[in-house]
Amino acid sequence: MWIDPSASLGSHVSIGRHAVIESGVTIGDNVAIGYGAIVRSGTTIGSGASIGDLTVLGRRPTGNRKKAVKPPSQLSPLVIGDGASIGCNCVIYLGVSLGADVLVGDLASIREFVSVGESTIVGRNAVVEPHTAIGRFVTIQTSCYITSNMLIEDDVFIGPCCSTSNDKYMGSGGEAHQGPIIRRGAKIGNNATLLPGIRIGEGAVVGAGAVITRDIPPGCTYVGNPGRPLTDRKVKG
Amino acid sequence: MWIDPSASLGSHVSIGRHAVIESGVTIGDNVAIGYGAIVRSGTTIGSGASIGDLTVLGRRPTGNRKKAVKPPSQLSPLVIGDGASIGCNCVIYLGVSLGADVLVGDLASIREFVSVGESTIVGRNAVVEPHTAIGRFVTIQTSCYITSNMLIEDDVFIGPCCSTSNDKYMGSGGEAHQGPIIRRGAKIGNNATLLPGIRIGEGAVVGAGAVITRDIPPGCTYVGNPGRPLTDRKVKG
Amino acid sequence: MWIDPSASLGSHVSIGRHAVIESGVTIGDNVAIGYGAIVRSGTTIGSGASIGDLTVLGRRPTGNRKKAVKPPSQLSPLVIGDGASIGCNCVIYLGVSLGADVLVGDLASIREFVSVGESTIVGRNAVVEPHTAIGRFVTIQTSCYITSNMLIEDDVFIGPCCSTSNDKYMGSGGEAHQGPIIRRGAKIGNNATLLPGIRIGEGAVVGAGAVITRDIPPGCTYVGNPGRPLTDRKVKG
Repeated sequence: MWIDPSASLGSHVSIGRHAVIESGVTIGDNVAIGYGAIVRSGTTIGSGASIGDLTVLGRRPTGNRKKAVKPPSQLSPLVIGDGASIGCNCVIYLGVSLGADVLVGDLASIREFVSVGESTIVGRNAVVEPHTAIGRFVTIQTSCYITSNMLIEDDVFIGPCCSTSNDKYMGSGGEAHQGPIIRRGAKIGNNATLLPGIRIGEGAVVGAGAVITRDIPPGCTYVGNPGRPLTDRKVKG
Repeated sequence: MWIDPSASLGSHVSIGRHAVIESGVTIGDNVAIGYGAIVRSGTTIGSGASIGDLTVLGRRPTGNRKKAVKPPSQLSPLVIGDGASIGCNCVIYLGVSLGADVLVGDLASIREFVSVGESTIVGRNAVVEPHTAIGRFVTIQTSCYITSNMLIEDDVFIGPCCSTSNDKYMGSGGEAHQGPIIRRGAKIGNNATLLPGIRIGEGAVVGAGAVITRDIPPGCTYVGNPGRPLTDRKVKG
Repeated sequence: MWIDPSASLGSHVSIGRHAVIESGVTIGDNVAIGYGAIVRSGTTIGSGASIGDLTVLGRRPTGNRKKAVKPPSQLSPLVIGDGASIGCNCVIYLGVSLGADVLVGDLASIREFVSVGESTIVGRNAVVEPHTAIGRFVTIQTSCYITSNMLIEDDVFIGPCCSTSNDKYMGSGGEAHQGPIIRRGAKIGNNATLLPGIRIGEGAVVGAGAVITRDIPPGCTYVGNPGRPLTDRKVKG
């Protein structure tokens, strides 16, 4: 393992073999960091947190000729709250804030400009894109895809493999990207598809495998492709 | 690399640089372990097996305030059968048993209390949740999501990106979770969605992209959203 | 880190701690290689490229009793073009050619016998199977599954979580596998499902969540499950 001399470590910190702790990292008390984990410059890890093996924290965004990214100088360091648990083989970027007791599953990745509220779960293999805000006590299940410019309020449940999008012109340019907005306590079934910019009302329910092409009012349940209110379907069925 | 003195290695074992072999690990003959692989305490690796680079074996479950997990003391060690092949960047937990000649693709993860029968394939990027039993000569294709409390019998074929679920109340609590039960020789098309607790009969077929909301009798083919027998559809179509 | 003496490094190359550079690797000028990255024998990395932490380059295929693979001797080395950017925790095989300025996201994997044209994006967590050709300026979004024996022409856009397949007999054998053919400039919505061998015409559009079971003519838009022309749907709707 290698620890930069400028890193600040609390008491009872364990760091696995072949881990790398870069400059300016701050680690609280009673933190466990796995084998081969990479903690990039400036990252803050709260007390009682655990970081899995072979996970990368504080990654800088990269782009190519087709895809520009903000320079790292405009990004605040990664902050991981007290008691958070990060899995193995994850990749979490600069400019992310994870609240206390957040759980991030193995092989998940979270891009820059994302905030995650306390006690929220980001499942294994889930992906969160930039500029998205996620509330408290949210469950984002395994293998979900959370696009950029989304808002997910407190107590939302998103089932496994849900897919979201933010670009109704599919790469043709010309308009700002807007992901779905999911209001408090809504529940999304597994492998559902949410189109750009739709709003899922408070306490609404999306059935498994539904394709949601328009807004859902609070408390309503939509199913099917295209998604329709559950009562409609029963009448027609 | 680092090998705990209490680990037991067979003959003709190769271990890559920066790998870590913890206490009480048992490795058979003719095993190849990749660079940076992590083999946690007590893991058994059968003869002729290969383990990819940067893979984690024998991971202990973690939780947060919202999600409790069993203490590792209740979990048996990870056992990997003879001739098994595990990819790179995988994460496999304590309490897993992989049969002989099992193939696990890169970036796959398998949670605790899971058994996988001989010669079964768990594809790249696939995820298997706890308390699921998978038979022999099964194919679970790339990026599948296999939820907890599932039963997958021998000779089943599950196409890429299939999604399953086990909680019809989506996180509201109040009932035991039950995943789908897939009987011998059934075939599931790519990106199909299976709802909690449904039963797919022996030799049944689920079409690509279908959303299966009720049991499928043996030998029948269901397609569409919601999934209906193929013959119905032809008549109506 | 460990660098084989037979590797050839350009000027201004940085290599992170615990990286491994095997024999016969060629690295151009101004290349940055992350911590713990594994560069297997014979790989060529173009000038100005960047390789993320804990990524495996030039992996050899493996199989089991059920799944045979070509011996590595029939595979050409991995070639990564100038200015390409590869993420963290990726796995890229022997026999792959990535053009200049290609961007591969974190946790993506690309199998053998695949070519990717210049400036194309292969998103985070995306998976590309063997024997597939991908053109220039293509976008393959996050968590897409690109099956084997596909052709993706220039300027195609594939939204997040799209799923493709190539085996209409689902593992029963008996016929050659053929993945979809996607012609120039076509656009595929998120979480769409494409069946084996279908052809998506030039400039055609597939709606989010659609299940495409037959060929789409150039310039047409298909939505729904099963996918139908958008105009049909409006009339019936």
